[in-house]
Amino acid sequence: MRLRSVLPIVGKIVMMMSIGMIIPLLCALYYREKEIIVFIACIGITFLSGYLLSRIKEKDIGLRLIEGLAVVSLGWAILTAFGALPFYLSGTLGYIDSYFETMSGFTTTGATVISNVEILPKSILLWRAFIQWIGGMGIIVLAVAVLPALSIGGMQMFDAEAPGPKLDKLKPQMKETAKILYGVYLLFTGIEIILLLIGGMNLFDSTCHTFCTLATGGFSTKNASIGYYNSPYIEAVIILFMFLSGVNFMLHYNLLRGKINYFKDKEFIFYLVVVLSAIILMTFDLFYNVYGNIIDSVRYASFQVTSIITTTGFATANFDLFPSFSRVLLLILMFIGGCAGSTGGGIKNIRVLIILKYLYRELYQYIHPNAILSIKVGEDSIQEDILKDIMGFFIGYIVIFVIATALLTAYGIDIITAISSVAATQGNVGPGLGLVGPMSTYAGLSPFIKIVLTFCMWVGRLEIFTVMVLFVPDFWRE
Amino acid sequence: MRLRSVLPIVGKIVMMMSIGMIIPLLCALYYREKEIIVFIACIGITFLSGYLLSRIKEKDIGLRLIEGLAVVSLGWAILTAFGALPFYLSGTLGYIDSYFETMSGFTTTGATVISNVEILPKSILLWRAFIQWIGGMGIIVLAVAVLPALSIGGMQMFDAEAPGPKLDKLKPQMKETAKILYGVYLLFTGIEIILLLIGGMNLFDSTCHTFCTLATGGFSTKNASIGYYNSPYIEAVIILFMFLSGVNFMLHYNLLRGKINYFKDKEFIFYLVVVLSAIILMTFDLFYNVYGNIIDSVRYASFQVTSIITTTGFATANFDLFPSFSRVLLLILMFIGGCAGSTGGGIKNIRVLIILKYLYRELYQYIHPNAILSIKVGEDSIQEDILKDIMGFFIGYIVIFVIATALLTAYGIDIITAISSVAATQGNVGPGLGLVGPMSTYAGLSPFIKIVLTFCMWVGRLEIFTVMVLFVPDFWRE
Repeated sequence: MRLRSVLPIVGKIVMMMSIGMIIPLLCALYYREKEIIVFIACIGITFLSGYLLSRIKEKDIGLRLIEGLAVVSLGWAILTAFGALPFYLSGTLGYIDSYFETMSGFTTTGATVISNVEILPKSILLWRAFIQWIGGMGIIVLAVAVLPALSIGGMQMFDAEAPGPKLDKLKPQMKETAKILYGVYLLFTGIEIILLLIGGMNLFDSTCHTFCTLATGGFSTKNASIGYYNSPYIEAVIILFMFLSGVNFMLHYNLLRGKINYFKDKEFIFYLVVVLSAIILMTFDLFYNVYGNIIDSVRYASFQVTSIITTTGFATANFDLFPSFSRVLLLILMFIGGCAGSTGGGIKNIRVLIILKYLYRELYQYIHPNAILSIKVGEDSIQEDILKDIMGFFIGYIVIFVIATALLTAYGIDIITAISSVAATQGNVGPGLGLVGPMSTYAGLSPFIKIVLTFCMWVGRLEIFTVMVLFVPDFWRE
Repeated sequence: MRLRSVLPIVGKIVMMMSIGMIIPLLCALYYREKEIIVFIACIGITFLSGYLLSRIKEKDIGLRLIEGLAVVSLGWAILTAFGALPFYLSGTLGYIDSYFETMSGFTTTGATVISNVEILPKSILLWRAFIQWIGGMGIIVLAVAVLPALSIGGMQMFDAEAPGPKLDKLKPQMKETAKILYGVYLLFTGIEIILLLIGGMNLFDSTCHTFCTLATGGFSTKNASIGYYNSPYIEAVIILFMFLSGVNFMLHYNLLRGKINYFKDKEFIFYLVVVLSAIILMTFDLFYNVYGNIIDSVRYASFQVTSIITTTGFATANFDLFPSFSRVLLLILMFIGGCAGSTGGGIKNIRVLIILKYLYRELYQYIHPNAILSIKVGEDSIQEDILKDIMGFFIGYIVIFVIATALLTAYGIDIITAISSVAATQGNVGPGLGLVGPMSTYAGLSPFIKIVLTFCMWVGRLEIFTVMVLFVPDFWRE
């Protein structure tokens, strides 16, 4: 890997992000907040650092696969370092906490170390929501769409950042795809803001909540998250957009072109079945063991199931107090996550579906040893090397989960908190159970644990391998 | 599957087991216990039922693979039904509990529903230990060794019962192998009994504990398990034999023939490394957080690590009170289990090793997409179809774990108890954490939960697929 080819590109993306910081600066100007100076400083430092990086002399031999991966993995880590500046320079958080919060933002996790968000300046809150919005659709996707220099050799980066496995070897028109995705994303953003305004939420909160819904991020401007509003209408709007954000955005794009092919997509059907089954099961559990009232049970079950499987992490109830079954269900949903090509995290529905089909194939083959069977999703047979990738991903996901959980307990964290905080950060969900439940925050954890969980968010968002390759010695050889 | 071809063979194995019941009968006679009549009745019922089953008219067209699987999966379930009779007819337990206890015995799990074992008649205790001893090496293995009728077409059954994946397609001399395995087993049994006698344990307890050590079963004749003796010597003997029982018995056989090739076996090395690393890590945890004394920390860590990874389940301390890290370590070890060809349960070390190598291969391939890499264990490349079997097993193991855990919580069990009791029964370990900790029993759980956990023991011992095929509709077609 040639670091000299990687850093200039990262530099350009850092510069791009400094331009994004103009948005919270405008907000600070509008509200006449003292953070004006903070954002001016952040823009200056970030732009200058990006510029210096971009000037590193590279031999113009183009990006190989390996440098493409490095741009994504190292790029996200470096970008987070600069994205953390507003939190740090405004005195909101220490630097480790600022880095945690920003990684949580970019990766659309939504785990927070801020105990009281309601006292924060609006410009800081907007920046916090904005980095989720950018991270949801993808920083590299945005860079591909707007920076001409990246369109050559950026395919690997595009793939490395995109959520979900690539099932076919077709090369999409990268720049075109990036623009389409952001187009749909912008449209949905506009619609949700309007719908939330109709529900009586003010413009600022509507914007922030919309950013964090579509990104399946889950940062809120209220300590009680969406529970603050106690409004079935607002909950319904957010459930709808969380659900839609968990779906492959190419399906939405097709809808906009007049082609409704959601139900031709097996992953969508699987996702829908999982969501509905989980809502039904949780409704029963909440009905018999908590609310004793079908309306409340359906209401809280459908919000929490949608919020967790899409890996958003908004809360309308303290689900840490739900009965064991509902909590285990939520834990399972944290692992499943959204669909490929959505803004959701986790393992992704298509992988879970293929893993289950893999199991059935092995079982069938056990009694028919000579049968040669391929795994089909819809009409398409999945190639064996893609199956291998998916199995590798699955193993990697579990290995990281187990190691991180053990590390947390070694630092004195109880088992439930350890399991759920790793599942919630690696799956980019946000709140977990126990010490990190939805009515609590990650603020009280020790710096070491915050670093481990920051790593979990990063490795989870970039789908394991893009980060894990950094640990293969071969990767660093020039 | 032709049930008419399956049942007569199961009948013969049931008859064989009725002969085994003579051993506790002799014990009852020796101690003049009133259970004499119970065992006579059990022998009568079991022998007669076995005889009637064996008389079912079958067309003599030999066993196909599918009937071989059915003999093993259904055979174990039916055998358990008769093996449960002594507990039931002696009034020790109700029938569901008797079935649970017997399945726990045959599968060498060691989970018990008997709150006070010290008041049980010796003949019942001996039967309880004896079924572990038989189950450890394998009922089918025994049947192959002693019943002439099974030597034809029994290869599938032999494989279906044997722990661990088959890495090569060599057909061993089945009958010969079965005799060798039982030979080594008997020799070790003799040695351990003598060593325990030297340590001051009486002959009866030495015999029962030896049966349950070599089988990695873990039933004890004392409520406090091995902790009752509080003897470092006895603990050392049991640690040694638990460790040896977790090793492939073919390596021991080679030792007896004068060939020491433990360290040529990659699985053995991996197992040794895992055991030693776990002991070191747990020693640190216990030293800093519990005992503050290095001798006690080493002593309890080495016993508990060996007991749990070999899936024996003996206890010398209430490990449910250990710190989170030690408990998570034990949970992880429950999944790993013993070596292929040992009497231990769990996923098996060779599979874990191959799964980790699979991950590394995928990672390496991610940066070298054109490399064609095979996975090697020692000198041997693992064939791709065996890798598929191992991946299928791994998925199946996790899917069953997740479903069973969710079922338990749906019946009101707390999350830690649910996770650990499923891990402990599916891995054939025995005690778990929380409600089913080592100083507690499974007695207080509801009948439905006991049935779920009985299933977990069965499916775990027969390594997932042999039982799961029963759920493939194709399996039942004649």
